[in-house]
Amino acid sequence: MEKPIQNEEFIMLTIKRLGCDDAQILMEGARSKAAHIGVPMCIAITDESGNLIAFERMNGGKITSITIAQDKAFTAAGAKKATHEYGSASQPGSAAYGINSAIGGRLMVVAGGLPVIIEGEVVGGIGLSSGMPAQDLACAQAGLEHFSNSMVQR
Amino acid sequence: MEKPIQNEEFIMLTIKRLGCDDAQILMEGARSKAAHIGVPMCIAITDESGNLIAFERMNGGKITSITIAQDKAFTAAGAKKATHEYGSASQPGSAAYGINSAIGGRLMVVAGGLPVIIEGEVVGGIGLSSGMPAQDLACAQAGLEHFSNSMVQR
Amino acid sequence: MEKPIQNEEFIMLTIKRLGCDDAQILMEGARSKAAHIGVPMCIAITDESGNLIAFERMNGGKITSITIAQDKAFTAAGAKKATHEYGSASQPGSAAYGINSAIGGRLMVVAGGLPVIIEGEVVGGIGLSSGMPAQDLACAQAGLEHFSNSMVQR
Amino acid sequence: MEKPIQNEEFIMLTIKRLGCDDAQILMEGARSKAAHIGVPMCIAITDESGNLIAFERMNGGKITSITIAQDKAFTAAGAKKATHEYGSASQPGSAAYGINSAIGGRLMVVAGGLPVIIEGEVVGGIGLSSGMPAQDLACAQAGLEHFSNSMVQR
Repeated sequence: MEKPIQNEEFIMLTIKRLGCDDAQILMEGARSKAAHIGVPMCIAITDESGNLIAFERMNGGKITSITIAQDKAFTAAGAKKATHEYGSASQPGSAAYGINSAIGGRLMVVAGGLPVIIEGEVVGGIGLSSGMPAQDLACAQAGLEHFSNSMVQR
Repeated sequence: MEKPIQNEEFIMLTIKRLGCDDAQILMEGARSKAAHIGVPMCIAITDESGNLIAFERMNGGKITSITIAQDKAFTAAGAKKATHEYGSASQPGSAAYGINSAIGGRLMVVAGGLPVIIEGEVVGGIGLSSGMPAQDLACAQAGLEHFSNSMVQR
Repeated sequence: MEKPIQNEEFIMLTIKRLGCDDAQILMEGARSKAAHIGVPMCIAITDESGNLIAFERMNGGKITSITIAQDKAFTAAGAKKATHEYGSASQPGSAAYGINSAIGGRLMVVAGGLPVIIEGEVVGGIGLSSGMPAQDLACAQAGLEHFSNSMVQR
Repeated sequence: MEKPIQNEEFIMLTIKRLGCDDAQILMEGARSKAAHIGVPMCIAITDESGNLIAFERMNGGKITSITIAQDKAFTAAGAKKATHEYGSASQPGSAAYGINSAIGGRLMVVAGGLPVIIEGEVVGGIGLSSGMPAQDLACAQAGLEHFSNSMVQR
């Protein structure tokens, strides 16, 4: 006999994803670090599927960084790794050489994109651009730290 | 005192999403209908974020439909509505007129794209192309029906 | 005799442009209206050149609207008019017919994009997407009103 | 009591930007150098946001350079640095390795793009293409020098 559909019978996946407020906390941490080091940044937060949740270009952030910040967040979330990991893996002679131009150039291999990971699951991505790659990365990390601290306090 | 992070304290969203096996069931229903009406189709299944899970071009499916089927599934999942709803809403003189060329032309307003909805939530999209729009739609619907039936039986 | 360059001798243009904080005020007004009418939106703010300053996807905002909101703001700022003005001007038989697919589909003719105008000068653009076009437009207008009110109070 | 909006109360940014006549002066300097060295060039001038103000393909300028010259000017203005600075910063093993394919390949790292800077502010960009990179750069520099000289004489 047929019985009504029960949720637990689905094969369906259950996904954790950054919400709008989470994105603002990440943004806050990154923005504050950028202000501290004196480099106005473009900051992008995506969900775990690489789709944009929030973006901000600080006064003086670079025009070219509007796309680059988003693509760093997209790459980090979508590929589940830091963009700079691709940087080393894509050096001439390495296995991923040339990957930087994939997806119409959206696959970013320069530092500044990090996955947001909660309990081992990628739930989003954060991407920064406008400074030196190491500065971009430091601000992305500051975003993650601020987010992590804010969760502990809840 | 700091305490370990508890899952229920996150602002994080929880999302239901089609899995790989779900996609094959949808595909099976659509393919079987396409065979039945004698029109080889391109069939695309995306997750709820519009990202491709599964694709199949039956022998004889149109080359141009490779992109169209994917974009129908993307539109249905991403916009949470049937593509043919945009078809009527975007007629000359209607409010969404001109929307068909949005997102680089990925926003499909031709019949054949349907959201996959479980318990009121969009969990994916299915898009068909190669036949007349009404045939594409019929096959998409057949995919949904087969999926729905298979869930009842589990 | 050569004399040092004086600023007033330049032919250079002087442009007024939304800053980062201005963008947040516009965002706030639009978000609050969206919440009030119960439609989670994608909200984009660009500068007068059409380059993105701020973006937010409210929980439940459509994936397809991520690009559409940005392109509405881009169109409104870049073309210095409301997107719905193009909607009427581009109807079949009208002079701008077909303009909707221009710029790779970025030229939006659906309501929901408005230029931000200060003292007769376009200083930016605001674009909303996820609801009915009339709802998108109402939220864009709410953004402008909130911005305008906030300036009077300063 | 509310008082009329005064310009100085805005948070708004004030931007200096190349005008149409400025662009022609830059063009003149670059074109004259190109003629002098006997290499017909594509010459592009953008404003500080990277949007094109003027373009010229001299008789014999390369077809492929139409896009490249524009993208060099876009990169120089948008990123506020010479394109050849990215050239060295993006060598294998360097921090910006792989950046050349960003923004759909618009991020140019080859010499020939320079920001136009007035009193420390980027007001536009100039990009040349068709010759050897060193020739492209020499012509871009000639454009800047001619512009700079013309301002002194006003």
